[in-house]
Amino acid sequence: MEDDVTISIDLVADVGESYGAYRLGDDSLLDSLSSANVACGFHAGDPVEMDRIVGLCVDRGVAVGAHPGFRDVVGFGRRRIQLSRAEVRAETLYQIGALSAFTRRHGTDVQHVTPHGALGNLCVEDELYAAGVLDAVIDVDPSLPVVTQEGVLAELARSAGVPVAITAMADRGYRADGSLVPRSEPGAVIHDRAALVERAVRMVRQRSVTSVEGTEVALDCATVLLHGDGDDAAPVAAAIRSALLAGGVEIAPIREVLARSAAAGDDRPIDGRDS
Amino acid sequence: MEDDVTISIDLVADVGESYGAYRLGDDSLLDSLSSANVACGFHAGDPVEMDRIVGLCVDRGVAVGAHPGFRDVVGFGRRRIQLSRAEVRAETLYQIGALSAFTRRHGTDVQHVTPHGALGNLCVEDELYAAGVLDAVIDVDPSLPVVTQEGVLAELARSAGVPVAITAMADRGYRADGSLVPRSEPGAVIHDRAALVERAVRMVRQRSVTSVEGTEVALDCATVLLHGDGDDAAPVAAAIRSALLAGGVEIAPIREVLARSAAAGDDRPIDGRDS
Amino acid sequence: MEDDVTISIDLVADVGESYGAYRLGDDSLLDSLSSANVACGFHAGDPVEMDRIVGLCVDRGVAVGAHPGFRDVVGFGRRRIQLSRAEVRAETLYQIGALSAFTRRHGTDVQHVTPHGALGNLCVEDELYAAGVLDAVIDVDPSLPVVTQEGVLAELARSAGVPVAITAMADRGYRADGSLVPRSEPGAVIHDRAALVERAVRMVRQRSVTSVEGTEVALDCATVLLHGDGDDAAPVAAAIRSALLAGGVEIAPIREVLARSAAAGDDRPIDGRDS
Amino acid sequence: MEDDVTISIDLVADVGESYGAYRLGDDSLLDSLSSANVACGFHAGDPVEMDRIVGLCVDRGVAVGAHPGFRDVVGFGRRRIQLSRAEVRAETLYQIGALSAFTRRHGTDVQHVTPHGALGNLCVEDELYAAGVLDAVIDVDPSLPVVTQEGVLAELARSAGVPVAITAMADRGYRADGSLVPRSEPGAVIHDRAALVERAVRMVRQRSVTSVEGTEVALDCATVLLHGDGDDAAPVAAAIRSALLAGGVEIAPIREVLARSAAAGDDRPIDGRDS
Repeated sequence: MEDDVTISIDLVADVGESYGAYRLGDDSLLDSLSSANVACGFHAGDPVEMDRIVGLCVDRGVAVGAHPGFRDVVGFGRRRIQLSRAEVRAETLYQIGALSAFTRRHGTDVQHVTPHGALGNLCVEDELYAAGVLDAVIDVDPSLPVVTQEGVLAELARSAGVPVAITAMADRGYRADGSLVPRSEPGAVIHDRAALVERAVRMVRQRSVTSVEGTEVALDCATVLLHGDGDDAAPVAAAIRSALLAGGVEIAPIREVLARSAAAGDDRPIDGRDS
Repeated sequence: MEDDVTISIDLVADVGESYGAYRLGDDSLLDSLSSANVACGFHAGDPVEMDRIVGLCVDRGVAVGAHPGFRDVVGFGRRRIQLSRAEVRAETLYQIGALSAFTRRHGTDVQHVTPHGALGNLCVEDELYAAGVLDAVIDVDPSLPVVTQEGVLAELARSAGVPVAITAMADRGYRADGSLVPRSEPGAVIHDRAALVERAVRMVRQRSVTSVEGTEVALDCATVLLHGDGDDAAPVAAAIRSALLAGGVEIAPIREVLARSAAAGDDRPIDGRDS
Repeated sequence: MEDDVTISIDLVADVGESYGAYRLGDDSLLDSLSSANVACGFHAGDPVEMDRIVGLCVDRGVAVGAHPGFRDVVGFGRRRIQLSRAEVRAETLYQIGALSAFTRRHGTDVQHVTPHGALGNLCVEDELYAAGVLDAVIDVDPSLPVVTQEGVLAELARSAGVPVAITAMADRGYRADGSLVPRSEPGAVIHDRAALVERAVRMVRQRSVTSVEGTEVALDCATVLLHGDGDDAAPVAAAIRSALLAGGVEIAPIREVLARSAAAGDDRPIDGRDS
Repeated sequence: MEDDVTISIDLVADVGESYGAYRLGDDSLLDSLSSANVACGFHAGDPVEMDRIVGLCVDRGVAVGAHPGFRDVVGFGRRRIQLSRAEVRAETLYQIGALSAFTRRHGTDVQHVTPHGALGNLCVEDELYAAGVLDAVIDVDPSLPVVTQEGVLAELARSAGVPVAITAMADRGYRADGSLVPRSEPGAVIHDRAALVERAVRMVRQRSVTSVEGTEVALDCATVLLHGDGDDAAPVAAAIRSALLAGGVEIAPIREVLARSAAAGDDRPIDGRDS
């Protein structure tokens, strides 16, 4: 990354996860984001909440992305459900379509798609789920960016010519091979705020993270996922945003990050493996 | 209605009401329809079924309409649920949006909106529900026709400049005031096939039906709702279609019927009470 | 109420209202209760949460009651749903039965039944819902106390010989006729902690509350419902409990309160209107 | 099997699988059964249907068993859902408890437990699910028979001293190793009615079935599962019942079959592998 090129990154978090009387998340987090992953009612979110959060996003200039998940509110979309590819496609389409009615009402469009929870994890490793989600994205709009970690979905999307934005997680530990440290192991989650902020800045500026083994891991991310829940989610997000801005990083929605990256002849955020 | 004007009508039925392993309805009914009310997953239908039925509609040239209902599969949307206007709006928007992802995938658009079951009944009589549904239609597209019986929703839609198509029910008994005979009373449902066919033809050609009291009731309908379930739904629909075609009636989707009616300077299908 | 008779009261709150990842309520509230209304999975609660909360109740000697509600998690059981009497009966039976599997596992039984939210409100005013809930209670055990405000359910239960425990609400305003001040009106909710504690003690010791009109209203309650959510639910409950104990009141589960009341020849907690 | 010992078998089928307006199954099937697997509302069935079907079972002297499944009506419990052992236990307990409220109302008890669909299949092969279901059965009553195919659940139940009834499927093809022929392969389902009846009689009288490979497979079953859906489910069941009675077989609920088997010093129906 040359010094005279402005570095840009998308800051995103999962939002709209309340469900009726059950409230989750802190709206002030939105002030630090350039994009938001909006739950679509299958694993979290309900129509009134979707309408509310999309309105807030539009008011703040935050790009709205679809966050489809398994139809399992009680499991918060975190439990794997055995579906056929046709079911994954149809359930994903349904959710993107539902969200798009709210973006249209508020004068915007769905700007990206990123599968949630167990569906998202399966998309990294299982071709059936990855293909089903990709089918739905292509049904809607083949130019709609897919946001995911490196894995099967990213590969399939690249092959199909669908834009891919790799996401990095500021508060999670990485292994030397670029995979996340499982939550059951030490180093899985970074709790120290200063460390977390410094880590996020390095992820973005150096496109690199120090693994739990101590090695440097390349992370050609276009977007950094911030933690959305917890009492200090909003202040942590604000601190990361401030540090990035202070470091001359431009914070912008995914499509803008991808466009700048392509214009700079740097396709790493789109396809990290070819860089 | 003058003799030299071609009479046109939309033939519609509720479809896509299967739910997973629970199958409902006979696809061959589609062969007789110009429009279909497609369940959107809240009271019936699931994403795979929605995809399937929209594909069948497109293959057969049947216009797809949204059939939003209460979120109550076990009650099939037939039980009244106390919602706020904002909830009705958001739940209706969600369902129209979800369906629109499937119409887009199959190369078409949602062509009309008609509330299902208890939601539909409440829209006839309760301003809160009627306003909530209308809010959603306007959010999506103020030129999207609303299909309903005469009542509050029809009135509010006319006031808002949203196209209204009044629906007649071929197999239901009418009272002298134009309301349906409740299902608990004699004459509520017409079972005899020959009588039913003749009745449907008269509804369309004379815009009139004989009430249980024996009087003639004006029915300025743009669409006739055919019964979608029951073993003989498909042959009854086919018989009605044949009889209408034999009588020189043109069978067309709602928007075409409304357009022809407007072009002929005859606004009765749009607003029967002013004719 | 004579000085030489020990006054006894049941302190109860709604618990077990978490739903998967959505957490609601503060377990430390249980330390102040003699009974708990446990959500049964229809409007709130899930099987794992039911198991957990019943275990906590048993550990603390808190009597477990069933809190059946409408099948509407997203509405938290607060929206009226139009059901038949047979549906109300079957849905209530189902929920009591489900809870009873957990009480049995933890070595206890369901000790009372009290309908939640919109179902509870309908039971006060609508015979269909009251009769459906009572049918279910009688199906399970006609000696199982029904906990409710004065109204149709209380009357039907008395007529059927089913024990009734009238509940008072410490933090709600009352009108001169004994009904609650609607939440939309001033005085609906008492927020001041000291006032709230004093009010609860008067409710129990004097069986009386001062209405918003300034008059004294008789409240022959066997149980006082404490607010279960909000940040200070647990300390407020603890303060009320302490004040009652300091005032010589005995705090005991509903069946014991009803038994003591009957033994004392004082049937007011069972049937306030005849006192 | 000696000639002078009366052979007894339980005839069972899945019932109560309707869901609101969605009707499934033919009640006349009950006339041929000694036991019924009643859906408990998670994968199929609703409270009104459970009440109805339990009433019909009691009227006909059919023993009621619990048929818990995954919470997935749209998938009819046929899709694997990743749960923890604690979730499997709690969800199973919940469903057995719910059913027990209806059996109590109709003067009977839950007589056996048999997991449905994907949950049932997982119990054959996966210790987590098998242990979770067994936990729940032991919570309710360790003398409650578990009905399953040979596999992990059967083994765990035997180790825990919980009665096991192995079930045979009259209309399914078997492999030489005793496993079912997968539905995707030839010979998976027996359609010919005469062959099916003869096969069922041999299963019961010889405790044996001819595999698709042509070998004889020992099947020490205590219960034969009849197909519950399809147009000819009831007449096929009636034919099997008649043929068994004509052959001197006694048809009785599971507990009676197990008791007779134990009394005869023949533990094969309880533990086929040791025979």
